[in-house]
Amino acid sequence: MKIGVLTSGGDCPGLNAVIRGIVRKGIRTHGASFVGIRDGWRGLLEDDMFDMTMLDVRGLSGRGGTILGTSRTHPYESGGPERMREVMSAHGIDSLIAIGGEGTLAGASRLVREEGLHIVGVPKTIDNDLGNTDYTFGFDTAQSIATEAIDRLRTTAESHHRCMVIEVMGRNVGWIALHAGMAGGAHAILMPEFPVSFDQIAEWVTSARNRGRAPIVVVAEGFIPEGFDSQVADQGRDNKGRVRLGGIANYLAPKIEEITGIESRATILGHLQRGGSPTAYDRVLSTRLGMAAADLAQHGHWGKMASLKGTDIVSVEMSSAVDSLKSVPLHRWEEAQVLFG
Amino acid sequence: MKIGVLTSGGDCPGLNAVIRGIVRKGIRTHGASFVGIRDGWRGLLEDDMFDMTMLDVRGLSGRGGTILGTSRTHPYESGGPERMREVMSAHGIDSLIAIGGEGTLAGASRLVREEGLHIVGVPKTIDNDLGNTDYTFGFDTAQSIATEAIDRLRTTAESHHRCMVIEVMGRNVGWIALHAGMAGGAHAILMPEFPVSFDQIAEWVTSARNRGRAPIVVVAEGFIPEGFDSQVADQGRDNKGRVRLGGIANYLAPKIEEITGIESRATILGHLQRGGSPTAYDRVLSTRLGMAAADLAQHGHWGKMASLKGTDIVSVEMSSAVDSLKSVPLHRWEEAQVLFG
Amino acid sequence: MKIGVLTSGGDCPGLNAVIRGIVRKGIRTHGASFVGIRDGWRGLLEDDMFDMTMLDVRGLSGRGGTILGTSRTHPYESGGPERMREVMSAHGIDSLIAIGGEGTLAGASRLVREEGLHIVGVPKTIDNDLGNTDYTFGFDTAQSIATEAIDRLRTTAESHHRCMVIEVMGRNVGWIALHAGMAGGAHAILMPEFPVSFDQIAEWVTSARNRGRAPIVVVAEGFIPEGFDSQVADQGRDNKGRVRLGGIANYLAPKIEEITGIESRATILGHLQRGGSPTAYDRVLSTRLGMAAADLAQHGHWGKMASLKGTDIVSVEMSSAVDSLKSVPLHRWEEAQVLFG
Amino acid sequence: MKIGVLTSGGDCPGLNAVIRGIVRKGIRTHGASFVGIRDGWRGLLEDDMFDMTMLDVRGLSGRGGTILGTSRTHPYESGGPERMREVMSAHGIDSLIAIGGEGTLAGASRLVREEGLHIVGVPKTIDNDLGNTDYTFGFDTAQSIATEAIDRLRTTAESHHRCMVIEVMGRNVGWIALHAGMAGGAHAILMPEFPVSFDQIAEWVTSARNRGRAPIVVVAEGFIPEGFDSQVADQGRDNKGRVRLGGIANYLAPKIEEITGIESRATILGHLQRGGSPTAYDRVLSTRLGMAAADLAQHGHWGKMASLKGTDIVSVEMSSAVDSLKSVPLHRWEEAQVLFG
Repeated sequence: MKIGVLTSGGDCPGLNAVIRGIVRKGIRTHGASFVGIRDGWRGLLEDDMFDMTMLDVRGLSGRGGTILGTSRTHPYESGGPERMREVMSAHGIDSLIAIGGEGTLAGASRLVREEGLHIVGVPKTIDNDLGNTDYTFGFDTAQSIATEAIDRLRTTAESHHRCMVIEVMGRNVGWIALHAGMAGGAHAILMPEFPVSFDQIAEWVTSARNRGRAPIVVVAEGFIPEGFDSQVADQGRDNKGRVRLGGIANYLAPKIEEITGIESRATILGHLQRGGSPTAYDRVLSTRLGMAAADLAQHGHWGKMASLKGTDIVSVEMSSAVDSLKSVPLHRWEEAQVLFG
Repeated sequence: MKIGVLTSGGDCPGLNAVIRGIVRKGIRTHGASFVGIRDGWRGLLEDDMFDMTMLDVRGLSGRGGTILGTSRTHPYESGGPERMREVMSAHGIDSLIAIGGEGTLAGASRLVREEGLHIVGVPKTIDNDLGNTDYTFGFDTAQSIATEAIDRLRTTAESHHRCMVIEVMGRNVGWIALHAGMAGGAHAILMPEFPVSFDQIAEWVTSARNRGRAPIVVVAEGFIPEGFDSQVADQGRDNKGRVRLGGIANYLAPKIEEITGIESRATILGHLQRGGSPTAYDRVLSTRLGMAAADLAQHGHWGKMASLKGTDIVSVEMSSAVDSLKSVPLHRWEEAQVLFG
Repeated sequence: MKIGVLTSGGDCPGLNAVIRGIVRKGIRTHGASFVGIRDGWRGLLEDDMFDMTMLDVRGLSGRGGTILGTSRTHPYESGGPERMREVMSAHGIDSLIAIGGEGTLAGASRLVREEGLHIVGVPKTIDNDLGNTDYTFGFDTAQSIATEAIDRLRTTAESHHRCMVIEVMGRNVGWIALHAGMAGGAHAILMPEFPVSFDQIAEWVTSARNRGRAPIVVVAEGFIPEGFDSQVADQGRDNKGRVRLGGIANYLAPKIEEITGIESRATILGHLQRGGSPTAYDRVLSTRLGMAAADLAQHGHWGKMASLKGTDIVSVEMSSAVDSLKSVPLHRWEEAQVLFG
Repeated sequence: MKIGVLTSGGDCPGLNAVIRGIVRKGIRTHGASFVGIRDGWRGLLEDDMFDMTMLDVRGLSGRGGTILGTSRTHPYESGGPERMREVMSAHGIDSLIAIGGEGTLAGASRLVREEGLHIVGVPKTIDNDLGNTDYTFGFDTAQSIATEAIDRLRTTAESHHRCMVIEVMGRNVGWIALHAGMAGGAHAILMPEFPVSFDQIAEWVTSARNRGRAPIVVVAEGFIPEGFDSQVADQGRDNKGRVRLGGIANYLAPKIEEITGIESRATILGHLQRGGSPTAYDRVLSTRLGMAAADLAQHGHWGKMASLKGTDIVSVEMSSAVDSLKSVPLHRWEEAQVLFG
């Protein structure tokens, strides 16, 4: 059995640990051999790959990034399925393990369904919004970095009696904002799922100030305030209609200052959240997901992906990860509000 | 409703976040009032407590330790249930929230069952061995600290071509060893649940060396090698028959050196693993458990404790946490071995 | 002897450790008493202060921020020296210890010289640009945070084959950029002291890429590229003619992409660099500077400040810290260039 | 010019950054070529080496350990100077850069003086006890790790109302204990240079407790209490008469508990302090020392080493590093005591 492995989409802490888990399990338990495909689907379509051995994956559990490289190339570009079959056949590659997010899993799922390609998947997203898995690897590292940033910014907020607005990742969902906000002791957490008005935000900020605190507002990049000028918001939508309003914190901070009279500053964490060495939690999860993916390939469970349920790694349909994104549910939003103000 | 809160047993990162979750939820949602009981059951038996307000719990989410203090006083000592009733009645305390480990939960459960006291619980153990909950708070911080230690020790091992033996916590179970070992890229992980012989350990060490690696062995404090001198082992058992052989790493390192001829060094992490600021994961989990415990008390679910199942906080019997300890299951041991040698 | 202590200007890791050093040394060795003045000169001019005891400074060595609060109020505002004398006299305050940056030390120096006030100082700047001291506290923490950020961003750069442009603090000097860039393995470091052309930057970036690296560019916020449109640059100057061109990284990244054809991304660290718990280095330095300042006050060395020279804390004129700012010298720039490209 | 580079003695964070500085400066500025000698003097005596290029040192600034490996082989063993000359001549090696501690620098100095070998040095010691340099690389990382450990242990001490005794490195000097103790807010710091009695230690511990603190005692491994049983102490001396009493903390903790009645626990940090990724401070210092050593070799300054004086890297006699070890001076001990109790 000769298996190609590729990583696709944005960088995510734990990718290397997944690769290591796949290769060690596949070689040691199943006697498989592996091909590393460079830069996601691009490498497959352009025939850019290398034989990947135990030596290539040694020492990878704690290393950030992906030794395979990544890109946002779409699997149906530049020749698509025809070309893939050609390249795979030329190299004697039987099957693929695709580690990627929404687009990758949707594409891989279609390639299995419509083209009969042999692909299994590992779900990857910093934002934690893929369905049918408790958590995705990389999310814990992102929430850790964001929490540490809040810890740091708090001392400056307190020393200057300021309000700090911290923008974290999350275009469509507020998971990082929710968790980092709870962990960092935020006085307001703003998420795309739950639009609130400027007045409500100002009330939380003022209430925190009145209790003697320096208000901390954590906002997911995709949050849009209730009653926000629709034209501005529309400019911030991408071609799928999803919000991509970069820098909402830069908009919120002066607005909060204007309404509350409290000096306010914005910090946008950006790429810091998606790079670097993964947390212990993410290393373990990634390693286990990788091992499970090797098993899925060995047993020919095409169209499936490895998924976390409770403490177990299970097998689910790849398509189920993208059929409905995993938003923050209402009860978590209500739970969080107990900490606001 | 006036609720007493106590923390009992060993220090554990997240205790303060639990307390903060309880108090904020209880006051804000249920209009309860709180009494902080000092040093676990001791404070209750000796009437050492204080009114605990929102002000007392501010800024606690990221702070290690417990503002309530803790001790190992047993609830049936020094007057026991009678005395508790007396003190609670004198202060108008209706119910208790007990945050503690095996002994505390067993004691609290008995106090509810036999004495009709109003108690709910939050399970606490660094070792992650309480039953009927996916994880316990504090465990993620412990595995993080242990993983970071392995990362550091690895460079010295490699520079000196040595084998490093790292002893982590885990008297009866190997959870910290398993996770930190997987995360840190250990070449052997030794756990109380799975005794292996010196020869097997030596084989893993030698195999890693032969592949050009500096062997890393992670061992839980409660591990006993197969065929280990029974007399020595017996001296290391406590009065419940559980293993307390302090410093197994100091025994293993010279033994490994003797068999393999590879220079070996031991490091015992000890108390480092149970103190300090909790990880983001533990802060979120602790806060949610605390909130859920406040709900349990409000709704009079005596004898229940808050527990993590998947991504949800649920309510289970306190006694179920201690009826059977949660050991590392066989499939996790098999999974880990793929990474050995 | 009753001494007032104030912290002025921007937040800086180590402020609390300085305060603790002052109070412990002053009380224990000299039998002095202390008054904590809130929010810098504002608290003095508005009579907002409190008696500060050993209890107030306990546990402060590792805590970020300042328990005294800070502001940018100028000492010659709102009543100025006259009002200060009045307030000091009303409280029986003999002398002041002012912990602050360029403006504070210049103001304090003038108050001593022209008004005969009793003031000693502790130099404070994240940017490390005050004269007559080897380093200032807070700088080591800032360089550490910036270095850790570079470590994280590098994995994303490598995975995506991108160039990363990281903007760090340094309006007039490049110390943080220089050190974090050297520590983080940057391929170009851009500092206000050494303008270089876009073509030179592009050459370094291309050279790094040609050697197979993902180019990392670290830029101080005050850097202006050679030949940069003078009008744009002029808009970025404050009323002292100093450069305040916010977000140079956002300007550089697309420019680098345009010239080199290498996809480039910008990250601005901002306030993250000035908050949170200080490094061990900064804690020790701060504590020692605080102790020395207490001695200066005790011995009536008005107009002096505590300063680091080699491994010693010495006493120098406050005015000498601001007479000429400490720029990165040419030989450090030449030294750094060996690492470029 | 062909230069051999070797690292000798114990692991030390920054070794790789020194090597990188040497190689980049030597190749880029001087057009030198380099040979990496494996495991210190052993590799030279056994002819175990490799051509070392820019590629070998890439990405090394933040990596712990040494890519060259290290050992404690003495330069006058196994053939000594004769054999060295032979091997160097066979490879066309003109000169050596030796990165090492007391033994290495003393040996290298003698090889220059008596044998006319071409050697320059870089001083290396975690303990910071080499003479004629302000600080040595690795020390800042060690003090950071020790400080972080104290921060963690403090919360457990406070929760359990215990005294914590933390043993850090420092066989003959107390630099790590002094700095980590000051940074971590210790109530007693015990160093080899300043023996104190058990009663004095107990007094500090009791005084801290009486002020409501959980006493923290930081002790250097080489500390011997005043009046300590001379026979026990003598057993702890090596063949140079230097103290090597392993585990003094394990001796102190029960003694403190016995005298003060306060429950006490010991933690020995051990190897954790000398491995892993260096701090930003150490990376910059190491890189600069490496560059300066390349210059020394280029200019034929045999017998010299690179040294830190204030903010400058200067050149001093290698022998001066070992002629007299750098102890903690009396005024630093007096300064620290202000923080005790």
